[in-house]
Amino acid sequence: MRGQQAFEAYGRRAREYADLLGSISATAAEDRALVERWASAIDGPVLDVGCGPGHWTAWLRELGVDIEGIDPVQEFVDIAAHRHPDCAYRQGTAEALGVPSASLGGALVWYSLIHTEPSGLPAAFAELARCIRPGGGLLLGFFEGSAVEPFGHKVATAFTWPIADLARLLDDAGFIIEHAHARTDTGARPHGAIVATRASGA
Amino acid sequence: MRGQQAFEAYGRRAREYADLLGSISATAAEDRALVERWASAIDGPVLDVGCGPGHWTAWLRELGVDIEGIDPVQEFVDIAAHRHPDCAYRQGTAEALGVPSASLGGALVWYSLIHTEPSGLPAAFAELARCIRPGGGLLLGFFEGSAVEPFGHKVATAFTWPIADLARLLDDAGFIIEHAHARTDTGARPHGAIVATRASGA
Repeated sequence: MRGQQAFEAYGRRAREYADLLGSISATAAEDRALVERWASAIDGPVLDVGCGPGHWTAWLRELGVDIEGIDPVQEFVDIAAHRHPDCAYRQGTAEALGVPSASLGGALVWYSLIHTEPSGLPAAFAELARCIRPGGGLLLGFFEGSAVEPFGHKVATAFTWPIADLARLLDDAGFIIEHAHARTDTGARPHGAIVATRASGA
Repeated sequence: MRGQQAFEAYGRRAREYADLLGSISATAAEDRALVERWASAIDGPVLDVGCGPGHWTAWLRELGVDIEGIDPVQEFVDIAAHRHPDCAYRQGTAEALGVPSASLGGALVWYSLIHTEPSGLPAAFAELARCIRPGGGLLLGFFEGSAVEPFGHKVATAFTWPIADLARLLDDAGFIIEHAHARTDTGARPHGAIVATRASGA
């Protein structure tokens, strides 16, 4: 199971990763603007799915968002809880969010499915569709590319995704695409983001 | 043929339409910003596909874009040529652009396929893919909606499209989605726009 391997790899390098990338100042200003704009329009609790060391969760909580962070890697949950003791973190995966159906106003899934086998994405999107209330929001960040392709990410194999392929899977899962973009920052891999809304009655 | 019916309906109402909507000041400021940003990054000639009374063509030409406008409705071509004598306009359809393969830097297709039967869209996208050079750009404007559905547009039946469905068709035709968004202005139907790049070697 590639997912399990990625979790273990992150577990071994959680501290190193957290020190390097686990702060809000290490994120791109454009991404912060997008996440803030998205979160400010959400009505209801937000789940930070794959929260890692918890920096997005804590930053959004400071901005007044009702938010909880979950991550499959226990080491990340421990680091997040230690760094941000006023935030709620627990272990959980994108495929089993551990919340009631239609209970979420939104989910932030920021680079959290990059290691998921392409064939495994529908299960994660189905779980997100189950948990996000109709009209609720989803914000997805990912490595953008012209094809669904694996590449040697420094922690574990990751995949690039064309916007169109993710839009197709999200549409199939019952989401309406509101916004999508690709961007290449200097020295970084192409970045993609999709904002979607849970369709009503789907 | 619904397309032919729409052309004839526009032909009968071309003057009325041109007086009501055929000026750049009747467009949304956000759309002008998008079109200008998109066009300024294009390298090579641009075709304004479905130019109507020619206001986008003329505005982009003023901004320094090498551009030609085509429209299936001869009445529109005549109005456009009369109003903007320094611009190039001719009759042509999205399915037969009348330019050599890979000769275009980009194509602006602004609400020009709204009356096209959904089953007819692949043919238009294939022709655009033929004519736009690899790396060239496509900017599509359309009525956004949660399903592919006809509605009673004031001139002829039109269709709403979810971003995901258009992204899928564009991907199939050999385009890479760079950006997409939906927006609802006060008093207007939901609007969608997609910026795509012609893939290399597809």
